[in-house]
Amino acid sequence: MTSQTSEQPISILLVEDNPADAELAIRALRRNQISNQIQLLVDGAEALDFIFCRGEYINRRITDHPKIVFLDLKLPKINGLEVLQQIKSDPRTKTIPIVMLTSSSQDCDVVESYKLGVNSYIVKPVDFEDFNRTVEQMGLYWLLMNRASHSFAV
Amino acid sequence: MTSQTSEQPISILLVEDNPADAELAIRALRRNQISNQIQLLVDGAEALDFIFCRGEYINRRITDHPKIVFLDLKLPKINGLEVLQQIKSDPRTKTIPIVMLTSSSQDCDVVESYKLGVNSYIVKPVDFEDFNRTVEQMGLYWLLMNRASHSFAV
Repeated sequence: MTSQTSEQPISILLVEDNPADAELAIRALRRNQISNQIQLLVDGAEALDFIFCRGEYINRRITDHPKIVFLDLKLPKINGLEVLQQIKSDPRTKTIPIVMLTSSSQDCDVVESYKLGVNSYIVKPVDFEDFNRTVEQMGLYWLLMNRASHSFAV
Repeated sequence: MTSQTSEQPISILLVEDNPADAELAIRALRRNQISNQIQLLVDGAEALDFIFCRGEYINRRITDHPKIVFLDLKLPKINGLEVLQQIKSDPRTKTIPIVMLTSSSQDCDVVESYKLGVNSYIVKPVDFEDFNRTVEQMGLYWLLMNRASHSFAV
């Protein structure tokens, strides 16, 4: 499933296996025209294929960084911490900002994420309206305020 | 110069040598009661003394992490990139979130900051109202939305 408009650069990579959360998040991110360039992926293996331009994404360029990755922690195939670790330990991809967006508020997950180099850690609000507002604010912050590291050759 | 209420944990460490910017930022951060626990330091050497509990800050505990550091890039004595590098390369302090808040929008500064592990990079708006709003939003995001890595023994 993808919300990408083909041939245009991806602003947001959303890695989320829960269809209800994904739909809500995409709707919140589209509000205020924050972004239409959202790529949704539903497991950790596909996220790594996308970032490292493998498999179905072999025609992407690894220097085409998304402006932000919103990454769930508990994902099928390869979990979010492993995805984070692989992206942050490769000099070609470590400058991509990654925000954990997860229902886990366990200290061990928070601390491990920061140790692996996560840029920010957001616990998904349980309340529907709070979830909406939170994702909208995340979009505004990371797309409109934060200066991402542009694509660059290494 | 400090805005800290003694004996209470610091929420925000602001490292900024421009008095006008510092005053504006503190006022914006105090709006909406985001935080009263702001420590202002005016050069990079003092910032490192604070974080690593040296000199005048010898009685601090290194595990008492600020929830967020807003760090200027061009600082007296030790520049912001060196401060960032030292904090992010020490396992006792690398989980402290650091946001560059700087007037530099040069790609080399942005890329180098991300390589050194910065959590976010914000270019100071030139316009007074935009600056106010930006700092207020940074406070809301990093204090109210982001889950910081709690103090922990290493």
